[in-house]
Amino acid sequence: MPGQVTIAGGAFVGKLIGVGVGPGDPELMTLKAIRLIKECDCIIIPASEKEKCIAYRIAEQAIPEIAEKEIYAFDFPMISDKNRMLEEIDVISEKIINILKKKKNAVFLTLGDATIYSTFMYVLENVKAAGIETEIVSGITSFCAAAARIQIAIGSGNSEIHIISGNDDIEHTSKYRGTRVYMKSGRQLGRLKEYLVEESKKKPLQIYTINNCGMESEEVTYGAEQINADAGYFTIVIVKEANQPAASS
Amino acid sequence: MPGQVTIAGGAFVGKLIGVGVGPGDPELMTLKAIRLIKECDCIIIPASEKEKCIAYRIAEQAIPEIAEKEIYAFDFPMISDKNRMLEEIDVISEKIINILKKKKNAVFLTLGDATIYSTFMYVLENVKAAGIETEIVSGITSFCAAAARIQIAIGSGNSEIHIISGNDDIEHTSKYRGTRVYMKSGRQLGRLKEYLVEESKKKPLQIYTINNCGMESEEVTYGAEQINADAGYFTIVIVKEANQPAASS
Repeated sequence: MPGQVTIAGGAFVGKLIGVGVGPGDPELMTLKAIRLIKECDCIIIPASEKEKCIAYRIAEQAIPEIAEKEIYAFDFPMISDKNRMLEEIDVISEKIINILKKKKNAVFLTLGDATIYSTFMYVLENVKAAGIETEIVSGITSFCAAAARIQIAIGSGNSEIHIISGNDDIEHTSKYRGTRVYMKSGRQLGRLKEYLVEESKKKPLQIYTINNCGMESEEVTYGAEQINADAGYFTIVIVKEANQPAASS
Repeated sequence: MPGQVTIAGGAFVGKLIGVGVGPGDPELMTLKAIRLIKECDCIIIPASEKEKCIAYRIAEQAIPEIAEKEIYAFDFPMISDKNRMLEEIDVISEKIINILKKKKNAVFLTLGDATIYSTFMYVLENVKAAGIETEIVSGITSFCAAAARIQIAIGSGNSEIHIISGNDDIEHTSKYRGTRVYMKSGRQLGRLKEYLVEESKKKPLQIYTINNCGMESEEVTYGAEQINADAGYFTIVIVKEANQPAASS
């Protein structure tokens, strides 16, 4: 089987491959993601069932044959208590390690890219620590897809890009030069809106809000006042200095 | 023809599609990139000839039929004088607009993703201003591919990500919390190395340098002292605070 390795003790074990399926449009999946999903022994999804897993629903549109694959579904905790979250991920990781020890090559589906704010990386660390081979296959990030959708440069020339996640702590971010991308703002969108409305009074800003990019419910608004505080988790806010043309620093 | 639009005056013109081909591995191209390259009337490349165009050489590995496509090659200036660069891009844009006016749907090949430090965005602005339809198709960025290669999270939890390009001005970047990604350092790699060697004396850092990621000449080193100052343009340096585990904030 491709990807299988021999570890100390001579037992054959599988390999864990974290595959980014991109931001929503199944056509934004890579050739490599498609091939590995087709070739693997089983699929691991970060949700209680296929129907509730956005990453799975993206993949099945590009690869209908995925329906025949063996699926292991794990409901990842969405809790703010980090220690409790890590404990729950440790329990899930143990179960995944047991699957991989049965000589199974598994693809773990992640939304966007696995290296950008993905819970998968915690599992990867645990699986690696158990001596099992791992791999990451890049996916299109949501912020690249959002910028493509509205046709603006996130970065150009010598300008900087700052990606801010969560927004518990945003008061310092107006200092950042170049472009700011606020991701996963969720319940903090109201605070972010207030913050950017105030900042806009002091200096000219270009503010783009993209909600559910690439999905049917996609919405794009311009300006701080237009940010919909209830838009939800999949909202990306891109802030550029206004004296910075769309395509230059 | 798909993608053709009618502009004021009723003339049919083509459409310009900026397509990111990803960081090097042709298997990291998206299904959409593949389809659009196959469907388009012609290909525009940012180099004097096919053989010198990295983006073209990536695409031709995934799509051998690209050899039959009409190619328009434009040598983009790599000059530090920004005004002169923009003037030269204006001249190239005029030529591209003339191609599109001949009812041709053109794919412009870009390395990585078009919204992340790509000269294509200047052309896009000019083509848009001429009233011609444009589109951007996302590609895998080099920094995502580099992080996947070494299996680290660029961002996780509430940590921030800072992408710094060019490195003319890096003295303020040690203030940034979370992860820093230095791209397109080129001739400034020596300065960046010095800067990170000094910073490493003051606080523990995890420093990864990835050179020519995904290509045969790929090289990965760890630590500031190991940065090869002559490694060249396609070098990415990722700096994480050492108290920040690979997969957590």
